[in-house]
Amino acid sequence: MQTDRLTQQIQFIIEIDRLKQILRQTLLIDGSRQENSAEHSWHLAIMAMTLAEYAPDGVDIFQAIKMLLIHDLVEIDAGDTFCYDVQANSSKAEKELQAASRLFGILPSDIGSELRLLWDEFEAGETPTAKFAAALDRIQPLLHNQQTKGGTWRIHGIRRDQVMKRVAPVETGAPELWPFVLQLIEDSVSAGYLMA
Amino acid sequence: MQTDRLTQQIQFIIEIDRLKQILRQTLLIDGSRQENSAEHSWHLAIMAMTLAEYAPDGVDIFQAIKMLLIHDLVEIDAGDTFCYDVQANSSKAEKELQAASRLFGILPSDIGSELRLLWDEFEAGETPTAKFAAALDRIQPLLHNQQTKGGTWRIHGIRRDQVMKRVAPVETGAPELWPFVLQLIEDSVSAGYLMA
Repeated sequence: MQTDRLTQQIQFIIEIDRLKQILRQTLLIDGSRQENSAEHSWHLAIMAMTLAEYAPDGVDIFQAIKMLLIHDLVEIDAGDTFCYDVQANSSKAEKELQAASRLFGILPSDIGSELRLLWDEFEAGETPTAKFAAALDRIQPLLHNQQTKGGTWRIHGIRRDQVMKRVAPVETGAPELWPFVLQLIEDSVSAGYLMA
Repeated sequence: MQTDRLTQQIQFIIEIDRLKQILRQTLLIDGSRQENSAEHSWHLAIMAMTLAEYAPDGVDIFQAIKMLLIHDLVEIDAGDTFCYDVQANSSKAEKELQAASRLFGILPSDIGSELRLLWDEFEAGETPTAKFAAALDRIQPLLHNQQTKGGTWRIHGIRRDQVMKRVAPVETGAPELWPFVLQLIEDSVSAGYLMA
């Protein structure tokens, strides 16, 4: 009954369960534990659904949602790299490329290629859809850090200039949300959650 | 800068973080812990992406993905109800309706209504899209229970006839996947993971 094709699809579905165990630096909003990359991806996909009206012209929201759902899968092999860890980020690209080949290679080639193209598009960050997806990926941890009164900013002694650099893609990827981001950062500094 | 509308959207995005703390009975595939409903919803959305070819005529995959992403949000207020707990399931509907009103009510009314309609459609289970989404929601824990050599079936002494009743919606919601489901159940019984 079960075709080879379905076997590959099921194998992929089983394999990606491991993303639920990849922990990010970001804390849940109640501060109780670190967030994992699967639930983070879910959160971003719903952000794309509910913030779609702020997407610039040329953004395909369905593509953005699919992109956000799979954008962190490579962490299954490559792990999550803390965005402010310069050394770890230098070797990140090669590890993630290998992970993409292995993971999307589990699928039948037509579906694997489609997902790989989506991931490549996200990584390249050149299309309006990829830029919007990246913007949401920067806004979500910002919200978590503000809501947890500093969260990973405090833990790692992160300063405003580092955060500003990190969230810069929002200005072009989701310009209508940029004033909100700037305000949130200012409020966080005023409240003592983030060092100036 | 921040409009009332954006404030509502951000409030919703903050609120739904709580789904990451709603634990299901299902174990992760490596058996290390219980799965939460946010990462479960992420897993289902990727299943819809990768198993789309088995969707019957009339299924809108984009709608199915959005439906799966939000289908468990009501558990933030109502909790997760174990599917084999008859008593708890009798009071489930009313609690979930109240939860839907509160949660989707946080959003601007146009977006809130759109999400509420999607959730209502999932709950009613009458459209091809809702039936396909429900089928995936039944297949995923089946896979987890087989992969964990019995998982929650063993813990709670669940038998084949209970599982067959639980997965019945797959036969109409995703008929092309039904032979796979039957085979998986037979294999699980043969392997001693599920009591006959």
